[in-house]
Amino acid sequence: MNKPLQVTGIGHALVDIIAPCEEALLAEFALDKGTMRLTSPEEAATLYERMGPAVETSGGSAANTCAGIASLGGKAGFMGKVGHDQFARVFEHDLRSIGVVFADGEVKSETPTGRCLILVTPDGERTMNTNLGAAAEFGDSNLDRALIEQSQILYLEGYLFDPEEARAAFHTAADIARPAGTKVAFTLSDPFCVDRHRAAFRTFIRDRVDIVFANEREILSLYPGSSFEEACAAVRGECEIAAITRSEKGAVILHGGGSIAVPAVPIEKLVDATGAGDLYAAGFLSGLASGRDLETCGRLGALAASEVIIHVGPRPRRPLVEAARAHGLF
Amino acid sequence: MNKPLQVTGIGHALVDIIAPCEEALLAEFALDKGTMRLTSPEEAATLYERMGPAVETSGGSAANTCAGIASLGGKAGFMGKVGHDQFARVFEHDLRSIGVVFADGEVKSETPTGRCLILVTPDGERTMNTNLGAAAEFGDSNLDRALIEQSQILYLEGYLFDPEEARAAFHTAADIARPAGTKVAFTLSDPFCVDRHRAAFRTFIRDRVDIVFANEREILSLYPGSSFEEACAAVRGECEIAAITRSEKGAVILHGGGSIAVPAVPIEKLVDATGAGDLYAAGFLSGLASGRDLETCGRLGALAASEVIIHVGPRPRRPLVEAARAHGLF
Repeated sequence: MNKPLQVTGIGHALVDIIAPCEEALLAEFALDKGTMRLTSPEEAATLYERMGPAVETSGGSAANTCAGIASLGGKAGFMGKVGHDQFARVFEHDLRSIGVVFADGEVKSETPTGRCLILVTPDGERTMNTNLGAAAEFGDSNLDRALIEQSQILYLEGYLFDPEEARAAFHTAADIARPAGTKVAFTLSDPFCVDRHRAAFRTFIRDRVDIVFANEREILSLYPGSSFEEACAAVRGECEIAAITRSEKGAVILHGGGSIAVPAVPIEKLVDATGAGDLYAAGFLSGLASGRDLETCGRLGALAASEVIIHVGPRPRRPLVEAARAHGLF
Repeated sequence: MNKPLQVTGIGHALVDIIAPCEEALLAEFALDKGTMRLTSPEEAATLYERMGPAVETSGGSAANTCAGIASLGGKAGFMGKVGHDQFARVFEHDLRSIGVVFADGEVKSETPTGRCLILVTPDGERTMNTNLGAAAEFGDSNLDRALIEQSQILYLEGYLFDPEEARAAFHTAADIARPAGTKVAFTLSDPFCVDRHRAAFRTFIRDRVDIVFANEREILSLYPGSSFEEACAAVRGECEIAAITRSEKGAVILHGGGSIAVPAVPIEKLVDATGAGDLYAAGFLSGLASGRDLETCGRLGALAASEVIIHVGPRPRRPLVEAARAHGLF
């Protein structure tokens, strides 16, 4: 696989607005802890009013994964749509400053850059409220064909199934990838997102996806009524590799021949779970793109996830490549 | 002192853009570690290009102090100037969401909200590069007379001596404070800022200031050629109370009758020194406004400073009032 980029991601380009909050605030807004909800600009304004002092930082699921790939020393690309504002400059800077190729299409959006209000409860769990803004306008015309063809892996976030044109662009992107020998990886993103698009997700995985990422709630949402084992067996039949994460219980990697359980990397205190799944995917895909065995991929995923949940914010603070070396994984 | 507000601050309204960096970057831009430099928008853009992924958070010296007062359960006000942009909304939200009264004048600025690029070296020290933007346009017309009169203490940051109109507004504000029985507190802010305005600082302190805050480098810059002891003796003659901080060596509180040494609160690891002085002032002034003795004021200052330097960002993450109770100070 002699391609210049390890991974190119497509996803929502978002700036995260992160604030600690008490459990009561989730109840007040009827929010389901640990999930993502789409909000209108008006709803977002009302919730922001009730939130305490926040920290702003670049986010977006696939973009976080690409930042993780770069932090592990790999070359990554990202496609997503931003507006013309200060948050757009923040988002672009944070990707480009670590060497991620950022392609946002020729036509800039007049809509404000998307943002995600993230409430972090005292247990470290995050609950997300996304106002997609410009990110929802991603479509076929924003795809950079060359970037996909030059990547070993194309990484797609399930969240983009919400805007119709973005969903169509995913199909186009996957169809560019296959003949170019670019593997297609896909994350289920969120149990409610799976719920909204269950049939489309299943068809997409069966027809176009090589590698699936999901957590326990997401995989159960893809196969409702199944036990965890049944859901694992079902997804195994639909793709080459599936990595199912279970927070502190570690992850199960399913492949044609069987399954591998990889424990989580112990941490002192969960501060902010934002980005855990994104960074797991970064570690895993970084290993895969470097030709490592699946267990090592899983250990790299667990290590990358552990680094990002011990501080506020969804991206690594210090180069992950150093952590990987310290753990004898690089 | 039966006034509704404990403290009203006047200062630069800034959003901080904070990134870790290696020592080499300071050398490349000839930056003096631990100090603040004013930059043009062009210089700021060049430096931002070279900075790694950052976190954005509300900052500004006096604004951080006001946030600290609120976090300690006190009522605070803040006057400063922002633009019309996303950073303005971030700045306003982060103050208002904790109950700080924010007065930014009737005429909004067309200039972008000021920002401060903060480089945090591996030793936890911060080096600041400020593009003042709208903050530099603060003037007499932005003063809220009632807010000053209704506060026990008016808190002014030395940084505002840089823009000429803001400096004039400080004199007006102090002249409103005195007849209203509002004490005037002043922080020297930065050794280079003292250097630029030494004579004006000394006159201002002698004629209009009751309480002075400074760190070791700043007080030595106010009285160049003096030993630390000589500088302390000099400032003691010019005001009612002076609190001189010395990082991990603790602080010395000077008052008419003598001096009190108060140790620093030990911390595990210095992560980001941004806001240490601002939060020291918050703790100290909160104590003073509640009628506490000077040693307790100093202990509150040390405690508030210790909380803000163990994480990235210049404002408290969790209510300081809880930390103060845990230490038996409230």
